[in-house]
Amino acid sequence: MNLSRPERYHLGLARAKKLRRLSDQHGWDDEDHSMAQYLCDDVSPYMVHYAMFITTIREQGDEQQRAYWTPKIEAGDVLGCYAQTELGHGSNVKGIECEARWDPEAHEFILHSPTLTASKWWNGTMGRTANHAIVVAQLLVPKTSNSSEYVNHGPHPFIAQIRDMKTHENLPGIAVGDIGPKYGYAPMDNGYMLFDHFRIPHSAMLSNYSRVDPNTCTYSKPANPAVVYGSLTYVRASIIMHARLIMARAVTIAVRYGCVRRQFQDRDSNDKQAPELSVLDYPTVQIRILPLLATAFALHYTGEAMQNLYKGTRAQIDKGDFSKLAVLHAQSSGLKSLCTELAANSIETCRRAMGGHGFGGGSGYIQLNNDYLSKPTVEGDNWMITQQTASYLIKRMAAAVAGKGKPLDGVDEVCREWLKSEHGKNIGPLNIFEDDWKIVQAFHRRSRYLTYQAYVEREVKKRSWNSLLLQLRKVSHAESQSILVTNFYKALHSPQSQMSPTLQGHLTTLFRLFAFYTMDAEARDFSKANAVSDADLDELPARIQQLMTDIRPHAVRLVDSWKVPDFLLDSALGRYDGKVYEDLFNRAHRLNPLNEITFNPHYKSDEIVMGKGSEALDKILAKL
Amino acid sequence: MNLSRPERYHLGLARAKKLRRLSDQHGWDDEDHSMAQYLCDDVSPYMVHYAMFITTIREQGDEQQRAYWTPKIEAGDVLGCYAQTELGHGSNVKGIECEARWDPEAHEFILHSPTLTASKWWNGTMGRTANHAIVVAQLLVPKTSNSSEYVNHGPHPFIAQIRDMKTHENLPGIAVGDIGPKYGYAPMDNGYMLFDHFRIPHSAMLSNYSRVDPNTCTYSKPANPAVVYGSLTYVRASIIMHARLIMARAVTIAVRYGCVRRQFQDRDSNDKQAPELSVLDYPTVQIRILPLLATAFALHYTGEAMQNLYKGTRAQIDKGDFSKLAVLHAQSSGLKSLCTELAANSIETCRRAMGGHGFGGGSGYIQLNNDYLSKPTVEGDNWMITQQTASYLIKRMAAAVAGKGKPLDGVDEVCREWLKSEHGKNIGPLNIFEDDWKIVQAFHRRSRYLTYQAYVEREVKKRSWNSLLLQLRKVSHAESQSILVTNFYKALHSPQSQMSPTLQGHLTTLFRLFAFYTMDAEARDFSKANAVSDADLDELPARIQQLMTDIRPHAVRLVDSWKVPDFLLDSALGRYDGKVYEDLFNRAHRLNPLNEITFNPHYKSDEIVMGKGSEALDKILAKL
Repeated sequence: MNLSRPERYHLGLARAKKLRRLSDQHGWDDEDHSMAQYLCDDVSPYMVHYAMFITTIREQGDEQQRAYWTPKIEAGDVLGCYAQTELGHGSNVKGIECEARWDPEAHEFILHSPTLTASKWWNGTMGRTANHAIVVAQLLVPKTSNSSEYVNHGPHPFIAQIRDMKTHENLPGIAVGDIGPKYGYAPMDNGYMLFDHFRIPHSAMLSNYSRVDPNTCTYSKPANPAVVYGSLTYVRASIIMHARLIMARAVTIAVRYGCVRRQFQDRDSNDKQAPELSVLDYPTVQIRILPLLATAFALHYTGEAMQNLYKGTRAQIDKGDFSKLAVLHAQSSGLKSLCTELAANSIETCRRAMGGHGFGGGSGYIQLNNDYLSKPTVEGDNWMITQQTASYLIKRMAAAVAGKGKPLDGVDEVCREWLKSEHGKNIGPLNIFEDDWKIVQAFHRRSRYLTYQAYVEREVKKRSWNSLLLQLRKVSHAESQSILVTNFYKALHSPQSQMSPTLQGHLTTLFRLFAFYTMDAEARDFSKANAVSDADLDELPARIQQLMTDIRPHAVRLVDSWKVPDFLLDSALGRYDGKVYEDLFNRAHRLNPLNEITFNPHYKSDEIVMGKGSEALDKILAKL
Repeated sequence: MNLSRPERYHLGLARAKKLRRLSDQHGWDDEDHSMAQYLCDDVSPYMVHYAMFITTIREQGDEQQRAYWTPKIEAGDVLGCYAQTELGHGSNVKGIECEARWDPEAHEFILHSPTLTASKWWNGTMGRTANHAIVVAQLLVPKTSNSSEYVNHGPHPFIAQIRDMKTHENLPGIAVGDIGPKYGYAPMDNGYMLFDHFRIPHSAMLSNYSRVDPNTCTYSKPANPAVVYGSLTYVRASIIMHARLIMARAVTIAVRYGCVRRQFQDRDSNDKQAPELSVLDYPTVQIRILPLLATAFALHYTGEAMQNLYKGTRAQIDKGDFSKLAVLHAQSSGLKSLCTELAANSIETCRRAMGGHGFGGGSGYIQLNNDYLSKPTVEGDNWMITQQTASYLIKRMAAAVAGKGKPLDGVDEVCREWLKSEHGKNIGPLNIFEDDWKIVQAFHRRSRYLTYQAYVEREVKKRSWNSLLLQLRKVSHAESQSILVTNFYKALHSPQSQMSPTLQGHLTTLFRLFAFYTMDAEARDFSKANAVSDADLDELPARIQQLMTDIRPHAVRLVDSWKVPDFLLDSALGRYDGKVYEDLFNRAHRLNPLNEITFNPHYKSDEIVMGKGSEALDKILAKL
């Protein structure tokens, strides 16, 4: 935290090299390397090389391309990045401006950035590290080999060398560099790159799916573009599992320090010598932290369920059966949106609940927050991708309303049941305090209700899509919450479960806390959906407070069960041994480089560092 | 953003000196100096010297002390800080552990920190800058001059020299330093300080209100301690005005960039050549930004009203009339909590609505957020101080229920009216879409309703205070929202207003947007309070969306009216001239020091910077 941005990149590169060398030395596999990287807890400048670059060559390159590039990549000579997003376009990939124009005479593609906004932007590992890039560009091909009219076949991936292999200087015709400091990700060199009619050979176009015939200019396109969705879904399932880890860290710190920290005696107590209360005993602290403790478990079970779903669907796809892809894609979009939002917000919620020390460097929240805040935006902006989930749900509801033939899938089926039950009306509100399964059903019923409302607006009243966006987001979140609640319930009632009755009891408390807390925030919808009675909804705040009181004595052991190591937490407040104040003092008194300098504070003097004369000031003011 | 923490302090001190010298040179008054400091947009290491230190000497020092210290302060020889908060105690000032023990033989106070948690902590300007400190310590005085039994008279302020006036080194018996990096406030040297039986003279105790007779050990205490509340209230009124400025900056950037940035064509459009839509045309972006545009105006009018209330109350207090102090204190506590929360959250909400570039250094949100996030905690933690507002409201409701004699004040009066109307029941829900004044009344009625519920729980059912904390916070927020809505309404309908009808029209749209948006988030309470009908509450989302559509074309001019200079915004996204992408590119390509270095990215090489050999790596790995 005392380093400058350039120093952070230096450190990041040094760590990345060290990790890779340790990996070679000890023969680590991918999992070992990932774990070491995770414990290092800082993004690596090599990250995009290991992830997107290698994967793209493997998936999009044809056999010959894979054979050519793989040995160079494995030897560490070729270091790559993935240049898709541009200054002016991110989510709307079809709108990118960088062009790859086929020159039929020279048998080359010409990469070109026709505008400033066509500049590649944000691409990790590109700013300073990579010497090669996957460049995604609009593929422009002449109609015929001697036509001057070009046809745009849309964005395609190309591989291009961007820096000299010896000097590491930019190649002529390319302007490439680091975009500068950001919220987080300090050691990552997110970059920009512009091409000025930069020529690359025919073999640069990754041709596993699409290709251009160099002689006839014929373009052939992929047989089934849906395969791409598969890996996107995998990334999103991983994002949920990662969100859970982030939340676990935030909550571990908050629960532990919430017990160590004491503030005020009980106002109603007569004992004037009573110790101050642990802040975690105050409902105002509990309400911020304990529902997040419950949410971390909810995310865990859904992350697990999504990974299993992905594996099953993947196996079906490999057999040519794409039937479950739509539901998987829809669920993973909505869950990515909801879960990363819950996790990102949880860090700041926990931090504020820690009082003044939450703002300090010893909190363990600063880098966690700065880095994680990218997640609500990347891999599909959280507000935008809820449309994908809602669109799918509306289609299924429309199919259920039409009611022809067999249901398309499980969602179509539950929509039909809901319609048959006259929108849940002929069975009345569910008694959520009697039976936990009724809680799950209440979430389902609300999701069906909101889906139906959206279906009516769009399909019956024919309202414009954009005017419905807020409603669509609500539909997506309701469905995602319903998935979280369902998977949590199923995990607790699985016949395979080997939980002790005590543990199951505590997790049941957390299940209810998560469900009721979520329900209370949107109580009116549950009422409108005829899912829960008004009387029961009125009772939720008191129930929530009781559940928090019940789980409070077990909170520390529940977070300890995650075993997040102190090394990773890097938090004085969240230490396993509770020596919060000793650690804070040590960081301030012994580990703070600012205390090694004695300053001259008098305003009439030009001198900044005592005894060093006025040159220090001159040097610094030059940076103003 | 490219500097390290130690460099940030260097720069901060250099800027502070420069500003002070400019002030001398040009004969700036306090307002000029504040404005220059504000435009500099970085906290000054001198800040606490100018604020708390000087004010405390002025208010708490007796005539002789003021005469002694003022010339030294004005000459800039004495540089002071304010050491109250400790490692283990912040909000609970009575619980601080640092002691000032009167030694009747030596006629000195002995400052001592008996535990680690007694260490002064967080105190600004103390870590590296100040040579003097106001030290708040428990005053321990012998029962009589020859008694060995000590009486604790509670926390009192003392002034102590802490560093050598020539060398600026710590004095013996004091451990003082900077606590290290934090979320924000990089140039501020928040400090820690421990005393080991450090002796200070009798004259060190600031004695305008309290004093210890050096011969008899008699302690005399202040006649009316309520005066202290006055300045706390002033600080809180300033916090609201400041919250408004923060929000104005966040919203200015978001509105401007929301217009420049385009994403996706209209899904329902048939024109395939249509330009992509400005993101501010999407309801999903509007709902995050436009209610904040409205909130910034709401905060403005209430900030203004609070300042006027403070001035009026202050004038009364100077005449010995303390009757309005309680309501002022209660209102300012609740408003501090609500308004700083709204402002702090607004920055991150706007940032996320900006897509990828919101995460970049050109957003203008990074330092704004990092610095402002201290506000929900300082000057009374936002969750804690809502108790003060609720406690006051419950007392007034109790008085109204008792109904004896004349009402104590305006709040007592409205409580009586509400009780007379049978809790609003005999007049039915208010027609909020017919008349804006009805909106204001609906907020009042909800606040009365929630106050009454809390009153019943506490005063009738005798429930414990701590078990009611969540409800109390709700009461406080409801009352604060009601104040915001009322002041906004009054400003628009003031007979003195010189607004054009057009402007009044737009501000009325914003008034409704703020009120309906706030109401929608807690709709059930308005229903339970019999303030708004369920049918009207159901209609709120559609009304809000329509109001946003209405104000959208005027959004840019409304934020431009605040005239936040580009110099202060320091945001590529929020530039007045809209040259967003040119500015982002300039920052990346020309102003980024990382691009001046060519690195050696190959993992087998120990070299980090190309051509510099392996020593660079050795140096950096030492920091791991």
